[in-house]
Formats: sequence, structure tokens, C-alpha cells
Amino acid sequence: MTKTAPTHVSKAEFEELFQTVCNWGRWGTDDERGTLNYIRPEHVRRAAALVRAGRSVSMAVPINTVAGPDNAHPALHYMVQAFDVHSDRGEPQFSMDFLASECHGDCHTHIDALCHIGYQGKLYNGKPASAVTSRGPTLQDLTAYAHGLVGRGVLLDIPRLRGVKWLEPGEAVSTAELEAAEQAQGVRLGEGDIFVFRTGQHRRRLELGPWNNGYDGEGKAGLSVDTILWMHERKVAAFFPDGDGETVPSNVEGIAYPIHTLQINAMGMACADSLQFEELVKVCEEEERWEFQVVAAPLRLPGGTGSLFNPIAIF
Amino acid sequence: MTKTAPTHVSKAEFEELFQTVCNWGRWGTDDERGTLNYIRPEHVRRAAALVRAGRSVSMAVPINTVAGPDNAHPALHYMVQAFDVHSDRGEPQFSMDFLASECHGDCHTHIDALCHIGYQGKLYNGKPASAVTSRGPTLQDLTAYAHGLVGRGVLLDIPRLRGVKWLEPGEAVSTAELEAAEQAQGVRLGEGDIFVFRTGQHRRRLELGPWNNGYDGEGKAGLSVDTILWMHERKVAAFFPDGDGETVPSNVEGIAYPIHTLQINAMGMACADSLQFEELVKVCEEEERWEFQVVAAPLRLPGGTGSLFNPIAIF
Amino acid sequence: MTKTAPTHVSKAEFEELFQTVCNWGRWGTDDERGTLNYIRPEHVRRAAALVRAGRSVSMAVPINTVAGPDNAHPALHYMVQAFDVHSDRGEPQFSMDFLASECHGDCHTHIDALCHIGYQGKLYNGKPASAVTSRGPTLQDLTAYAHGLVGRGVLLDIPRLRGVKWLEPGEAVSTAELEAAEQAQGVRLGEGDIFVFRTGQHRRRLELGPWNNGYDGEGKAGLSVDTILWMHERKVAAFFPDGDGETVPSNVEGIAYPIHTLQINAMGMACADSLQFEELVKVCEEEERWEFQVVAAPLRLPGGTGSLFNPIAIF
Amino acid sequence: MTKTAPTHVSKAEFEELFQTVCNWGRWGTDDERGTLNYIRPEHVRRAAALVRAGRSVSMAVPINTVAGPDNAHPALHYMVQAFDVHSDRGEPQFSMDFLASECHGDCHTHIDALCHIGYQGKLYNGKPASAVTSRGPTLQDLTAYAHGLVGRGVLLDIPRLRGVKWLEPGEAVSTAELEAAEQAQGVRLGEGDIFVFRTGQHRRRLELGPWNNGYDGEGKAGLSVDTILWMHERKVAAFFPDGDGETVPSNVEGIAYPIHTLQINAMGMACADSLQFEELVKVCEEEERWEFQVVAAPLRLPGGTGSLFNPIAIF
Repeated sequence: MTKTAPTHVSKAEFEELFQTVCNWGRWGTDDERGTLNYIRPEHVRRAAALVRAGRSVSMAVPINTVAGPDNAHPALHYMVQAFDVHSDRGEPQFSMDFLASECHGDCHTHIDALCHIGYQGKLYNGKPASAVTSRGPTLQDLTAYAHGLVGRGVLLDIPRLRGVKWLEPGEAVSTAELEAAEQAQGVRLGEGDIFVFRTGQHRRRLELGPWNNGYDGEGKAGLSVDTILWMHERKVAAFFPDGDGETVPSNVEGIAYPIHTLQINAMGMACADSLQFEELVKVCEEEERWEFQVVAAPLRLPGGTGSLFNPIAIF
Repeated sequence: MTKTAPTHVSKAEFEELFQTVCNWGRWGTDDERGTLNYIRPEHVRRAAALVRAGRSVSMAVPINTVAGPDNAHPALHYMVQAFDVHSDRGEPQFSMDFLASECHGDCHTHIDALCHIGYQGKLYNGKPASAVTSRGPTLQDLTAYAHGLVGRGVLLDIPRLRGVKWLEPGEAVSTAELEAAEQAQGVRLGEGDIFVFRTGQHRRRLELGPWNNGYDGEGKAGLSVDTILWMHERKVAAFFPDGDGETVPSNVEGIAYPIHTLQINAMGMACADSLQFEELVKVCEEEERWEFQVVAAPLRLPGGTGSLFNPIAIF
Repeated sequence: MTKTAPTHVSKAEFEELFQTVCNWGRWGTDDERGTLNYIRPEHVRRAAALVRAGRSVSMAVPINTVAGPDNAHPALHYMVQAFDVHSDRGEPQFSMDFLASECHGDCHTHIDALCHIGYQGKLYNGKPASAVTSRGPTLQDLTAYAHGLVGRGVLLDIPRLRGVKWLEPGEAVSTAELEAAEQAQGVRLGEGDIFVFRTGQHRRRLELGPWNNGYDGEGKAGLSVDTILWMHERKVAAFFPDGDGETVPSNVEGIAYPIHTLQINAMGMACADSLQFEELVKVCEEEERWEFQVVAAPLRLPGGTGSLFNPIAIF
Repeated sequence: MTKTAPTHVSKAEFEELFQTVCNWGRWGTDDERGTLNYIRPEHVRRAAALVRAGRSVSMAVPINTVAGPDNAHPALHYMVQAFDVHSDRGEPQFSMDFLASECHGDCHTHIDALCHIGYQGKLYNGKPASAVTSRGPTLQDLTAYAHGLVGRGVLLDIPRLRGVKWLEPGEAVSTAELEAAEQAQGVRLGEGDIFVFRTGQHRRRLELGPWNNGYDGEGKAGLSVDTILWMHERKVAAFFPDGDGETVPSNVEGIAYPIHTLQINAMGMACADSLQFEELVKVCEEEERWEFQVVAAPLRLPGGTGSLFNPIAIF
């Protein structure tokens, strides 16, 4: 079990990983649900059966309107109208607001549609990347997720395993560590599960303030790229990390975000980004379990390549 | 059981209704959860136990970027970047988009925060309406709903009861009809339940096209104002209507939206607006039940007076 | 002098017009100013010499936030903050707002950058249309107009000539009519001039209300396509019409907006859209002249394909 | 002639300045043009007569979409559509974009409407500040500037006088220095003139990068507050500074932006903010004069409290 930076992966090795985990055609040539196909009715039912305490907890970061090193495109939030104290004539008054945001901001909890990533001219399932133009995608948009992601969430809490507050930027998590976390928490990630992966990035932000976690800054902690084989074998349905689950900088030659590329483009995996689990870990510790029902519903945005959302864990 | 327009309610009668259903102080002077307090852990547990078929269905209208008589403020949706076919060098490319919308549009499924309505200088729980300024609210914002609304949803389908496709604009639904619908569907709305109320407005829109459903147009169908007493007695936790559950024009003297005012301002009820149940009713008919788990999570927007969202029913 | 719909122009005739008026290479292979090159210092000086009365008048339509048949994408205008009467402690308070708009709306006075139109894979001057991607243009953006358009404006007022309030949708204006208007007004459009062209579209809107002036509606009045030869011979520097100067529907086979295409793509002409001259015509009549200094400054938006602006006529 | 920080001004002295320069009622009780009333037709004519070289130059900073210490609210600029290479059928294609921005950003050249500042419950001319609510102002909005600001601009270039590249944050410019600059440049600011005031802030930004020029940062250079008396005596019509013409921090007790408050609220002066003169100074040196025609047209935004714009100097 190592905490050090991941070993170097060549472009050829990456292509081999891509071929190994590739799900193109697995669920039909026009499939847009990808690994969500692993979630069958019995998984939904069993996930709901985990609701015993009657508690729910958000896994979203509050929407951030303040520019910062990790928030180059802050959300815009304005009042459309407040109450008008000068013209109050005893009738009800209505306050209203307006929200605007990019849908894939590093600082905002969001889900990616499968059309989010093109690789070598192709989308997931081998569809042509030319389906995504300046007017939006004609396929693999958010529509596939319109009825929400519902299933069992399993949190693997790596800082808990390591006995640290958070992983430092650049650190990578190996398959061995993921399995050690399973053992430590008494849980096993399996077919149709939503993999909730914690590096503690948001706790670090809360305690130390925002930092530039991009390629031109300090980077971030995430998974080692070879864990993709483990996710593939385990038949993971969806991936919910804090940060985006990637180490920055990447250890793959010439590929900045190899895990996203493999997950979304090769596997058709539903991937969310930039969640936070600081409230969740407290509930897990109190309930002494790291599995729960997850219900996560992107906005119903036709042509959306992604959506801010507020995924909920229910115990 | 009448389908005719509601009888006239005077301002004095409205004030009496207000006093009768008023929950101010009921859950403490600083309470911001209002009728969500009716949902106790056992309700959450029992709601989850309704998940037997393993099916989920959205109750949201797809986000609408086309201006129309019921969509004066269309959402804005632009690509931040598409794939650049001219500069493809074999690396992953990322498509990204941008979404902007008012949070209380008639054409967009959304939830209202309790600070959405001020009446006679007060918010819910007697707090001063001056807490909501042009910079946003300092209390009763979306924060109270951050961890989602989770409970049992009960659909009362009035067009089904009446044997019509939809209710016509201006028609009002009485308490007697609500109880007749319960009987016809074999379900009973009770403490801590989410009241899912269907007039068929969205089906009408799908079949006949958008119409001006406001005060300067043809209006819309909704509840008779006296049903508020029934909702109060039944201890309804939340209200999820298609349209906004109100008849337009209102039958209350000088009050344009009396039901919202009573629900939000007097009762502290979590109210959503402008849902659609066209997919839901099919599932209800197939499953032969009109109760289900509901998980509905507004965006986690501090200072929000409302939020677009995608509420999910799970069977 | 005809008021009837224009005679049909074939695709081949259009291509011949294109070749005839084509300015590619005329001002160098990397030129981005196009017909603005016609404006030399003496033109600027002579235009300023027209300022004798000391009056200025806007040629812009007020920004429109109300959706309508000619305003599918209304501008968004919100207060960022108003004065807070509840917290006034005797210090200055600042009101601030926010504006958002598409840059080429039919209902908003704007200028087009030369990169606005691609035709058969090319931009003006033969540059590749691939220079404009989802991330914006890499050339022929608003930068060429950063220091404003300054010159002599000449108004040709066709409703005045015809003795009508406005031209009806679909009507076309011929070269003969343009010359008749010159004669009637005692003015001659010449090298380096800004051609201010009035159909009365905005007056019609003010009196009769908005109408759908697009291809799926009633259309609009504009120039006959062959007037492009006249504009080319006269060495017009810029084109400022109410509406967009085109008849809708077009009389050119397979080309929806032939005049814009010839002006921008073939000639490199600075073209504005959707101005209004209702205030201007009053001043022209009072001053008894139809020539004036024009100063028109787009926003200084790098990468802009167009900009809302407020062009000013000075007498 | 001092470069040191300004001497302290008490609240009482500020109130005395306010009374001394107050123009309330001077041009009628409902006047909204304020000091623009100083510009009479002969001033407009004389300004135009300065156009001899036939050159125009922008005084605007390019719109900035990159967040930074002086750009907390970056503008948003997206393509609505680019050219679609995949569907090119030989017809013209149109590229279009979208722009959104707050109207008073420190990093964006803009003009303030008179309703921008309320002081002790009043707007300019003694109108009630309650006219500005969350829905916008009902008076003193941009409408007063709809037909543009047209007149003589006089640049006073303080770094040139001092022989430095720029003034450092916190430095204040005295009346004596303004008059010394006049003498050095052979120009005199007079009735109806537009006062173009250069501290070199933008040059500093271009060379050293953005800095936090607000109260929580390093501050900025500007005028000493007592120069307001000189502007009043000289009957200045409008104020066009780089930065906002204020020293930050202010030397007035309890008033963060005293000069703006006196200019806008007491005098009714048309004030722009955050211009840049780096191109202008080159032209001034070449033409050996520091006076020129200015034409500056805010967007025609009803209810606007301010507007991005691109003011033009013409020589």
C-alpha cells in the first residue's frame, strides 16, 4: 500500500487499458446508459432497504459565487425581485432569483453526460464525436439520466484508512488501498453500485482555503489509473468522487484526465465531479456503515453535457 | 362534487383561514423547516419500503429555452466549448455547457424556499420580510432543504377521477374531490406525506401547445382555497402540483395566489411548482398504486429563494 | 420605381454578383477592416464638419427584455444590489445591475463582426471558416472595430420618398428608388460613407406592435439584392439599416440572407442590424439635411462575433 | 505639488464640500442630465472642430472574462453557434455569441447612471433613494444618456507631469498638480468639458499584472477630494478616469468613495469608470495636443444603473 505518486503509464499501456475496459456494443449499438445498465431492479430495491435510520445527507458542495484559484468561473446569483417595502399594500409579495453557471466547474458538484468526452474522434459506444457541435450534442446528452441515478452507494474513505485528514495533491490511491478500505469498513463494492470515493479534498479546502488544483497549480489527489481494471471487474455503475477522482498531474503519457476518459468514453460510466462528503462521513461513523441509498437527479436539460446537482445519501 | 368555479372568499374569510392553519411558533421561533417537521424517521423508512419494483421516474418538465406565452423568461443554454475537429491531436476533448435561468419560472419545475413569500411585512414564523433584500435573503433560504426532501409521495389524479384528459383553466378542485380521488385510488394522504396533485396541465400543454396561464391570459386549474384546511388537518409535509396548484384567477378577494400564501407563509410548507406527471401516471397505472418514495433535492444554493430541480418518484 | 416583390435571382446570378463585388485581397491578404478602408482621414474630417447644430441622436432600439415574436431571446437585466433601506447608516450606497444578451438578436441594435458569416467554407478575404469554433473566432472578430466607426452618415428614407409610414413586410427597394431618395433629399451617398437605410420597420413596430419578421412569419422589407452593385460602385463603407436591410423572404434561390452574405463575406462591409431612426428622422426634417457625423462604437470584446451598441448621429 | 497621501478630511468638512458643490435644483427639479447641461451646442460644435487628423482611438479596456484580484465578476462570453462543418451544404452560415456582465465591474470600462449612488436617503437633485428597488430605478437611469455624451475631452496626464510610468496605489493628485498638468500640456479644462484623468493604472496593470485595488487590498491612486471644488468651478461636464479617479483608501472619514459621491450625488456629474488611455496618450503625443472630440454612448438600457461602453476620442 503506497502513498507515493503513481508509476508512469505509457500511451500504449493506456490504449491497452482502454481496450480492456471498453464496453462499446455491450448494451446495444445505441445504448446511452452505459454502466447504469448494471443497476437492475433488485439493486434498486436492496438499496432502498438500507434506509433504516430515516436520515438523508447531501453530497453537494454549496454553489460558489466567489472567484478563486479553483473557481475561475463563479456562479452568478442575482435577485430578480425582493420585497418592495415602499409599495406594500398588504398583498403577498414574492421574492425571486436567477442562477447562472457553467455546468462542469471544478468548484461545483455536477454530473457529466456521456457526450462530455470525445477521444480520437469517438464518443462512448463508438459514436462519432461530430455529434457534438457548438449547438450542443445530438446524442449521449443528459436525457439518459433524466429519471435519476438510484442505487446503493458505497463510500471508500481513504483518509480514514490512512489516518490522515486528507490526501495531499498529487497522491494516488491504488487498488490495494481500495480493497484495504473495504476491509476496514466492512463493505464490498459490487455490481451496480455507486462508488463514492473520498480523498478529503473538500475538507482540505474548508481548513486551508482554496488552492489551484489544476495543471498549472498544485494539482490534486485521486485514483491510480490502473484502478480502472478493478472498477471494471467490480461492475461499478457510477463514480462519485470529491475532486474528480483523478490525480493531477496525471501519470499517463500525454493524457491529462485518463480516468475520466476511460470511465466515460470507454466504459460509458456515469461520472459526477466535485462532491463533498464532510457531512456524509459523520453520518457513516454514527451509523457505523458505509453503504446507503443514493438518489441523484441531474436537472432535466435536453442537450445538456452536464448538470449541477445535489446527490442525496439516505440511511 | 363540483367542477365549477370556486365560490367567492372574502378577505376576512382568508384571514380566518390564515389564522386557522398558521404554524408560526409550532416548531420553535427559529424553525425553517415548517411542515417538513412532520416527516419523522419512520416516515422516511416506510417511504423507502415502497420501493419494490425498482423503477424511478422524473416529475420534472424538461428545461425550456423557447420563449412562449407561459415562458416569458426562457432558460439560456449555451456550449462553453464543443469538440474542435480542426485541432484534434488524439487527446481527449471535453464538451462543456452553460445554463442560466430564473428560479421561479412558470415553465420550469422548481421549489420555493420559505422566504419566497412575504405577507403583510412578515415571512413564515413571523420573521420580518425585511430579511429579504436585493442582495438576497438572510434567512429561510434554500439551506433548510439542503439535504433533500425524502418521504412518501401520494398522487391524487383528478383528471383520472373525472374521466377527462385534463382540467380546464379556471376549474377548482374541492376537498370532496380530493377524498373521492383517494377512495378511487385506494390511498390516503396522511402525516408527513408529500401531496402530489395532478390537474393534467402538462398533458394539455403537450397536446394543445402552451397557453398564457397567468392573470392576463386564460388562467389555470387548481385547488379550491378551502382545501387548505384539509391539508392542514392531514399534516401534509410538502406540495408537488403540476401548474402551481392554484386556480387562476383566484376566488379570494384581493389575493392573487392565496394557496401559496397560506402554504408557505402561514404553514411553512415546502412547495414545488410546475411539475409534470405524464410519465408518473403511466407507472402508477402499471404498478396499480399511487404511492411511492419521493426524493427531491434542490440545488444547494445559499441565499436561494428557489431552485430548479428534478424530483424523483421511486417504485 | 417599383414597390413590388423583387424578381427572382438564381443561384448562378448570385454567384456572379458575389464575384463582381468581391473585395478579397483588395486591401491585403490579412485585412480585417474591409470597406472601412474607404474611410480616409479627410472623410473623418469632413464628417465632423457637419456638426453645426450641436445635437446628437441615438440610432439604437432600447434594449428589450420582453419575449415576443421578434424577440425570441430577450435580454436579461437584473439588479445586483439596490439600496438597502434597512441598513442605511448614513454612508453612500451603490445600486448596480447585470445585463446579458445574445449579440445578434433581431430586436437589439448590434453590429456584426466580419467573422459572423461563413460561406462555402470561407470568411471574408478568403480566410478559412474553420477559424470560428465553439470557443470563438481566431480572426475577423470585433477587434477590427475597436476604435469605433467614425464617418459621414447619409440617411435614405424610403417611406418618406413613397409617402407612407413604413414599408410592408416583403417589399423590396430598388436601386432606382435609392437614387430617387437621394434626389428628393438633396444628398449623394459616396466613397467612405455610412449608408443609413430606413424602411420604417421600427415605426411599424411602435404603432402596430411586434410581429414575426422571420422566415416562419410575415417577413420584412429590405433592399433588392441587385442594389449590392450600387453599394459597391458607390464605395459604401458601412451599412446601418432598420431591420437588417434584407427582404424576408429573400428572392435569391437557396440563400436566406443574400445581402448580408455579399456585404460581409464578399465585400468585407461593416454591417449593423436592427437600428431605429424614429428620432433621427425628426432631427433630419428639422435640420433639413440627411447627412451627419456618425460615431458608432461596439463594445471592445475580444473574440466577439457581434456587439450590442448605440450608434450616434451628430448634427 | 505633493505626491504624498492626502490629508485627512473630517465628516463635517465632507458635508461642507457637499453643500458647496451641490447642484440640486440648478437645472430644474426633475433634471436628470446634471452637469451635462454645461454642454451647449457651441461646445459640441467646437469639439467637432478638433477633428483634423481624422483619427479615432478607444478609451475602453477590452472586456475581461478572466477572474482576478481586480475582476471578481468576470464577464461571460459564449458562442451561441459556430459554423457547423459537418452540415455545410453550401449555404451561408452564421456565427453568433452571447455576452453577460455586471455593469459596474472594476475591470470593465463603464458609465454610472445618476441613480448609481444614494446618500442619506437621497439621489441627485434630492430625489428619494427609494426610487431604486430590486426591480431597478424608476428615475435617473441611463435614459438621460441615451443620445450619447458628445463634447470636448481634455486629458490631464499626471504620470507624464511627474515623469513616472504610473502613480502608485494610495497616491493622491492635488488641484495644484492638475493645473500644473494643464500648463505642461498647454490646455485648459473649462465649461462643458469632459475631464479625462490619467493615473496610469492600466499601464501598471499591463506591465505588472492585476492587483487587488480595493479596500481589502493595495488600493489605488486618484484625486484628492478637495479637487472637487476645482471641478465645480471649472464647470466640468463629465469625468473619465482610469481606475475610478478615487484614492483607495479614501482620506475622508467614514466615506469610502467620496469623489463619486460628490460628483454623482451632489453635482449630478456623468461619471465613467475604469477607462484606459494607453493608446490615447500615444496619439496625444503624436498630435501634440491633449484635447479632442469625445463621443461616448452607453447601451440604451431602460432602467440601467450603468453600462459597459466604448468611449471614443477623435482627433
